Formats: sequence, C-alpha cells, structure tokens
Amino acid sequence: MKIIRSPKLMQKICREIKQKGKIIGFVPTMGYLHQGHLNLMRIAKKKSDVLVVSIFVNPSQFGPKEDFQRYPRDLERDKRLVEKIGCDFLFCPKIKDMYPFGYKTYVEVCDLTKVLEGASRPSHFKGVTTVVAKLFNIVQPDIAVFGQKDFQQAVVLKKMVDDLNYGIKIIAAPTVREKNGLALSSRNLYLSSEQREQVKVLYQALLLAKEMIKKGERNPSKIISKMRELINKQPLADIDYISITDAKILEPLKKLKGEVLFSLAIRFGKTRLIDNIKVKVS
Amino acid sequence: MKIIRSPKLMQKICREIKQKGKIIGFVPTMGYLHQGHLNLMRIAKKKSDVLVVSIFVNPSQFGPKEDFQRYPRDLERDKRLVEKIGCDFLFCPKIKDMYPFGYKTYVEVCDLTKVLEGASRPSHFKGVTTVVAKLFNIVQPDIAVFGQKDFQQAVVLKKMVDDLNYGIKIIAAPTVREKNGLALSSRNLYLSSEQREQVKVLYQALLLAKEMIKKGERNPSKIISKMRELINKQPLADIDYISITDAKILEPLKKLKGEVLFSLAIRFGKTRLIDNIKVKVS
Repeated sequence: MKIIRSPKLMQKICREIKQKGKIIGFVPTMGYLHQGHLNLMRIAKKKSDVLVVSIFVNPSQFGPKEDFQRYPRDLERDKRLVEKIGCDFLFCPKIKDMYPFGYKTYVEVCDLTKVLEGASRPSHFKGVTTVVAKLFNIVQPDIAVFGQKDFQQAVVLKKMVDDLNYGIKIIAAPTVREKNGLALSSRNLYLSSEQREQVKVLYQALLLAKEMIKKGERNPSKIISKMRELINKQPLADIDYISITDAKILEPLKKLKGEVLFSLAIRFGKTRLIDNIKVKVS
Repeated sequence: MKIIRSPKLMQKICREIKQKGKIIGFVPTMGYLHQGHLNLMRIAKKKSDVLVVSIFVNPSQFGPKEDFQRYPRDLERDKRLVEKIGCDFLFCPKIKDMYPFGYKTYVEVCDLTKVLEGASRPSHFKGVTTVVAKLFNIVQPDIAVFGQKDFQQAVVLKKMVDDLNYGIKIIAAPTVREKNGLALSSRNLYLSSEQREQVKVLYQALLLAKEMIKKGERNPSKIISKMRELINKQPLADIDYISITDAKILEPLKKLKGEVLFSLAIRFGKTRLIDNIKVKVS
C-alpha cells in the first residue's frame, strides 16, 4: 500500500490507472476507522481493480461550534487497518493543500440539504459536497462507497453526482452495529460508560417504529410520539430531531407508503449521535 | 466530425479517448460562432489530439430579465464552421438533458464573482461555473480555451479549476476585433447601424486609458473620468461600469502597478457590450 499526501501526485497516479482501463473503487473517510468503514472498503475492493481510501478530517463540513478540533485521529492505527483490507493507495492530504490560502469555490445541493441533518447543521452538507467533488476530481473513481448511517449524505452525494455528470456509481452500504444495536461511529469514542448504556435507545426507537408499521400503524405523529416517549426514558438523552420522510427526496410524509426513512439525532452531553432505518411500507 | 446530443454518450466517448492516452482540447461555446470562437478552436486544436466543441445556450447564466430567449442561434451554420476548423466532436446537449426536472446542484466561486460583471449580473457566474463544471465532467478535457473578451469569466474558471482540483489547463486567448476595434461578440448582431457607428468607443476608451498610462498617468480616477468623457460623446452609449482592477484578483486598485485590467460594460439600447484590456504598469 502506498501512502500519498499530495493531491497532484494522487491525481497523476489515478490518471495512469484509468489510462490502463482499470476500475478505481474509492472510500472517502475522516479516519479513526471502525468496522463500518472497513466494510465499505471491502465492498469497494470487490467491485474494483484498484482501491483508494482517503483520510481527511474536512474542516469545511464542521460548524463553528462543532467538534472539528476534538474529532478523534489516529493515523498510525488507521494505516494498519487499511493495509490489512488490501487498500492500494491511502490518500491523506494536508488541510493547506486541500484548502490553500484564498480558497473560494463551493459545491452545493439545494433543498435536500436543508432538512434533517442540514436543518441542525446549516453549512455541513456544503462542506461535504465540496470536499467530495474535490476528492472525486483527484481520485477519478468509477465507484465510491458511503455508509447508510449517514443516509442523507449518500442521498445528497448521489444527487450531486447525477446533477454534475460525474458518471460515478455511488453505493450506500448497510450500517454496521454493535451487539446492542448502536451504529458504529468514530464519535462513539466520546461516550462515557453511563452514556454508553443509554445510547442503544436510538436503535431501539427505530425498531419500535418498524414494529408499529408492521402492526399496521400508518400515522407518523403517533409513531414519532411513541419513539419520543421511549427515548425520553433515558435521562441523558436530549432529542435533536425524530423524522419520518420519503427515503428518496427526504420530504416529510403525511401518509406512510413506499420507501420510508425513519431518522433521528440525539445528543448525549456534547456528543450528537445519528441513526436511521429504511422501511418498505405497503 | 461527429455531432453528439447525449451527455452520457459524450462522456463515454471521451473516456475511451482518454484511455488511449490522447489529449482532449475543449472549447465550450453558446454558438452563433464568430472568428473569436474559431480562433479559440484553432488554439485548442494545436494543443490537443482530439478537439471537442460544445454549443449550449446555458439558461442558468442568464438573469430573469436578460436575453436568453433572444440570444441568437444558428446551429446549421455553426456546424459548417466548426467542421471546417477540424473539430472531432460537436457536443450540442438539450436543456432537459443538462438540467433535468428536479436539478439541484450548483458550483460557486465566491468574491471574484461579486465584482465587475458579477455586480451587474448577480447570478451569472454561478450559472457559468455550474455548466462548465458539468461540461468538464462530461468531456474530461486536458485543455480548455476561453476568450479574453470575457476576462473575468476566465479568471473565475481558472479559480474553480484550481480549487476543485480539476487538473485542466485553462487558456485565455486574445480578443479578436473588427477593423474599427469592436470586440467580436454574438451579441453584436443586436446592433442597429446607428449603434454600430458608436460602439467602437468601447475600444477607443480602453486605448485612451493605455495611452494615459504610457504618458505617465497613475491616478485611476483621472483615467476613468477621461474614459467616461469620451464614451459620453456617443449619444446612444449608456455606461454600466468602467473599472480599473488588479488583473488576477479583480480588486480595485488605488495605485496602478503590475498587471492592471481596464474593463467596461456599456449599454446601447437593450444591448449590453463588454470589453477589456490588460496593461502592464511599471
């Protein structure tokens, strides 16, 4: 595995790979890798000839009061994990090379980015689409794999790829969970052992919603109300949002039908966790 | 020469060309071609193995009260001209294929797009950078050639290419002029014969500025004042702006030194013409 720091060199290498007609699979990450990330890499590797992984804690997707400084980093450990998967190139650019002095260009997807996570984190997706557009131009992948835990991110990036004619296949891979149901996330590191006991309520609330659907409930307010009730039993849980939307255009649903996305964001102290589940409602 | 309508087919063709290691030269236009355009194509052809020209009157770069509907179009004539130059692929996408229903993604360069043309045409450059990003993703050129008549456009696109890591060389080619100095533009078609007599004042005003610099004048206000005086002698001329800025970052200059851009936009009836000249000031 080669570790590349320079965007220009990474681009040059990827151009040469493409000239050979090889398929590039790409997994962009912010590092501090867990099994969820590694699963994305395994999927990308299966579907490509050359696997490129990037690790870049992207400042432009963090709000001014968010955890950019505090976000966990461990490049040495990450390198070992990525190498084991059989990654060919690990791209770890420096901030000053990605956003040099006088940087001025942003990519933005409208509407889809104003709801759910976008409502709570106003400039978040603008940072995500900008850095991913940059990474796509550098790495020139045929396939890029993202996690369904960040469901809205995958929807937004698919839209960007379609709208800007990137011609890249975006795959959203299933969320990997701990035994108690907690979705793997680098931010789980922040949790105290007391919080750790309570965070499993995120997935429990999503399963409750699924169960209610199964039993015939079709009223979104009733489902949200029950989810809220369950979550509020955990004294450390502070609900940011619970939302029931269409899974494609992320618009709130009055009548539950088709592919329905249940998503939520819950704060435990300073730590904000998200999760979601997609349910086919007939 | 092949004429391609479908963005997907154009992208597929260009991918195959790139796989062969060939250099793609690209000239994006809005059609109704004149010698200025043809000059860009000759330059692109010299520097590449395969020349791709696009003709697309891009709705997103016109303001709501601007001349999108009225903008001149003559695809049959354009085809003949482009073929004569030795163009390999003429890409003429349909609006509904470039901006399908539900289109949501925009590329924007900050600051640089708020001055000069951007001050007079607030959403213009957002439309330009968006469509050019799309065209770059479809055509995957190594080199793209733009005209210096749209000086700010070339500066903005260079910035976009650098910031988003496109790895494309942007060439800004000299403005082609009529004998009387008028910069070639598809919009010159709009001019009445009475206006035609007067529009040469744009270039005359720019030459006056250059002459004043040559004679030692270094006060921007004095130069603008003289230019204004000259232009106002033409009864049909209505000044939108006359500006003296740095040629790289397009910021107003208090002291004239280095690469200085003199630019102006003048209305003649409903027709708005722009021109500029770059002068090295020691």
